[in-house]
Amino acid sequence: MKLSDFDAYRITKTQNHEISKVSSDPWNDLPSSKSEAKKELSALHLRLSELQQRFFVDRRKKLLFVLQGMDTSGKNGTIRHVFRGVNPQGVHVASFEKPSSRELAHDYLWRVHKRAPAKGEIMIFDRSHYEDVLAVRVNKLKPESVWRKRYRHINDFEQLLADEDTVILKFFLHIDRDTQKQRLQERLDTPAKNWKFDQSDLVARSRWGEYVAAYEEVFAKTSTPHAPWFIIPANKKWARNLLVARIVVSCLEDMRLSYPQVDYDPSKIIID
Amino acid sequence: MKLSDFDAYRITKTQNHEISKVSSDPWNDLPSSKSEAKKELSALHLRLSELQQRFFVDRRKKLLFVLQGMDTSGKNGTIRHVFRGVNPQGVHVASFEKPSSRELAHDYLWRVHKRAPAKGEIMIFDRSHYEDVLAVRVNKLKPESVWRKRYRHINDFEQLLADEDTVILKFFLHIDRDTQKQRLQERLDTPAKNWKFDQSDLVARSRWGEYVAAYEEVFAKTSTPHAPWFIIPANKKWARNLLVARIVVSCLEDMRLSYPQVDYDPSKIIID
Repeated sequence: MKLSDFDAYRITKTQNHEISKVSSDPWNDLPSSKSEAKKELSALHLRLSELQQRFFVDRRKKLLFVLQGMDTSGKNGTIRHVFRGVNPQGVHVASFEKPSSRELAHDYLWRVHKRAPAKGEIMIFDRSHYEDVLAVRVNKLKPESVWRKRYRHINDFEQLLADEDTVILKFFLHIDRDTQKQRLQERLDTPAKNWKFDQSDLVARSRWGEYVAAYEEVFAKTSTPHAPWFIIPANKKWARNLLVARIVVSCLEDMRLSYPQVDYDPSKIIID
Repeated sequence: MKLSDFDAYRITKTQNHEISKVSSDPWNDLPSSKSEAKKELSALHLRLSELQQRFFVDRRKKLLFVLQGMDTSGKNGTIRHVFRGVNPQGVHVASFEKPSSRELAHDYLWRVHKRAPAKGEIMIFDRSHYEDVLAVRVNKLKPESVWRKRYRHINDFEQLLADEDTVILKFFLHIDRDTQKQRLQERLDTPAKNWKFDQSDLVARSRWGEYVAAYEEVFAKTSTPHAPWFIIPANKKWARNLLVARIVVSCLEDMRLSYPQVDYDPSKIIID
């Protein structure tokens, strides 16, 4: 597998960015049954574990995965199910929740830049600087004159990271409104999931259409060759996990990783 | 399993701290074959994954595991094999390599305190502040009048963390000198492992006896009820992984974790 195998899911400038025209159920080459997907995912876990270890010791590139999506689209579940089996030494997750007052006292990319990956590191952003043109826009936390300039800042920032050896892939976990309703209801109906329910999710849900419009502009403005967006059909959790795992593995396969060269002659060393 | 089941491996003040008197081959209740150990380890991975998820959402305690040991004792391997399958969102690794000049400009606990775990987090220290009474002592980087005071600082620091809801367990991965020789030789003989070989490991190896003496004093001075040391027989990698996994799982089992209580009535909420 190589990354270009997933061009169907990749958002390009020439594509139609209307989210509603893209199915959030499995399509293209995704299997139609859960059991088939699970088997493939297990194999991908082994491969990912191997590739990540090589990436970690290779120490040539930095890797950044951005996860965005509506509430209940499965950002946490994707992290848990795709990155199960990797070495926690080389994989980090930055969760960008509501900014603290100290963070708000800086520009909005300040806290994000601090969490950019180092060489050999895989960094996963659970939400990201994109909230600064999504939640901030929909909830009118800043006037348009402020957030509209941010697409350019974001592209420039991602260009900097890419120029400095960071590979960036951005995933939009795409669910429909009915699926969100089912998942929220499940959190209410299952006592062990009650803690996951947050009443403010209902406020965001009531602004679904505004979020869709904000995401569509994000895709149009920020899906660049050096930091593309992928639209992941996420109504079925197993299809979502499988597709993200395939793309992540392909991205690492494309790097043709090897073990670092050494500058000594192993045969000349004697251990006492 | 509960943590007290592992008292045989726990270092207490009344015990003999002579490392050479403790076998680095599997003993006590460890299985004698690799296949048996691997089967048990797989079951422990599933249990750990479940417990860690509960620990993460429970958000009542902080958890700190310290890994120390001679070169090649398997600190990285332990992290990779024991914590495979956990959610990278709640598990972090801090590797304390040679301090930077900025770090050296502060007291030696400054960089360590920054990496202390938060509520719901599991932090693994790959090496730690103990190097400041181990490598620093053996390599004479500071005079005895300086490092000798540090046992007390370290106990006080760990007491602070414990008083603030941190559970601390410290593991000494115990290998013998012959095992180290085999493992270093393997790094020379296997081209894919050449990059792991570091010539400075031979210098440390030549000071084996001094490291042993420094570790013995560490155990005598810093194995406290709130931050005990465990001595892990580590000549066999599978026995080492299994024992650490058992202790980690037991520690989490002892916490009797549950899902957070909610302060709303789930049956009263209607999703539009």
